[in-house]
Amino acid sequence: MSFSPLISQLIDSLRILPGVGKKSAQRMALQLLERNRQGALKLADALQQAMDNVGYCKLCHTLSEEELCPQCAAPNRDDKLLCIVESPLDVFAIEQTGYHGRYFVLKGHLSPLDGLGPESIGIPDLVKRIEAAEFEEIILATNSTVEGEATAHYIAQILASKNLVVSRIAHGVPLGGELELVDGGTLSHALAGRRPFQ
Amino acid sequence: MSFSPLISQLIDSLRILPGVGKKSAQRMALQLLERNRQGALKLADALQQAMDNVGYCKLCHTLSEEELCPQCAAPNRDDKLLCIVESPLDVFAIEQTGYHGRYFVLKGHLSPLDGLGPESIGIPDLVKRIEAAEFEEIILATNSTVEGEATAHYIAQILASKNLVVSRIAHGVPLGGELELVDGGTLSHALAGRRPFQ
Repeated sequence: MSFSPLISQLIDSLRILPGVGKKSAQRMALQLLERNRQGALKLADALQQAMDNVGYCKLCHTLSEEELCPQCAAPNRDDKLLCIVESPLDVFAIEQTGYHGRYFVLKGHLSPLDGLGPESIGIPDLVKRIEAAEFEEIILATNSTVEGEATAHYIAQILASKNLVVSRIAHGVPLGGELELVDGGTLSHALAGRRPFQ
Repeated sequence: MSFSPLISQLIDSLRILPGVGKKSAQRMALQLLERNRQGALKLADALQQAMDNVGYCKLCHTLSEEELCPQCAAPNRDDKLLCIVESPLDVFAIEQTGYHGRYFVLKGHLSPLDGLGPESIGIPDLVKRIEAAEFEEIILATNSTVEGEATAHYIAQILASKNLVVSRIAHGVPLGGELELVDGGTLSHALAGRRPFQ
């Protein structure tokens, strides 16, 4: 037995969502059909509209349906600071810290094995963006993974000749973290990056 | 900061899916926008089509876009057996056992506190269905929860006066289950329901 064709098609389509397997997709499809058809129609509409209209901000390359995203369009942000991240979700994460400079969003990180070189992740555009503006500090906020570190190093090298402060976000023990649960690599960073007690 | 309006709308709409919270919805929305716009459009279309066209089978009340679901329309199934379940997903589960009779799908279980009495879950239709056909055995396959048991008892009472075998699916230790991990209630059922060793 299988579900009727339209239900099967819905279940298969739901499986493109990250983290949704066969069982979850079945549960989602039947729950929508039995309890929330209006919500499902709204979701269909939201998907359609977002896919048709959301493009990329022409300055920072984050996802945006306007030519400029809200962070690039805001007139009252610090034009001396540029924060470089790997994805639009990272912009959201950093915004929550109260950071008030500008952003540049790479298309992921350098990954030669996957054929992702500097051009593929948008580094030439980043250089153009930096040359066209008057930043004083560039903050490298790529992920703290091997690829993220490599990407940060690569960008730092490219920018070395320019008259800019290039900084990297700090690595260390997370707030609320217990030492015995923190891995050795993080702990080395935390020790090496120690600061005078205030 | 918030996402741009269309992205926010998409994130909010994704949260109607069961098991999807704020973080998952953000990840889903951005992954679809960045990596799989075609899949997202296909999902929008599948949602629209399913919500517009899927109704209920007029015999067994499972979800179906045809007047009769595949199980009710099949001519070569056992017309003497009727299996009563709580939801369309249960039909799918029981089909996997190789069961080859007919089905009736309730709209959930009796739950007086939520205002769900016999009429709300479709018991009058069930009685009509049984009276119109010539079943010999009715299998109560409602869930093994307090409400599921109550629903099974209620239906058994109603059917007591009719000349029918009314049975309940067995409760016991699941296959591969270790005794020390099985709860006391299940174990009592397993003991009480013991059978001659073959």
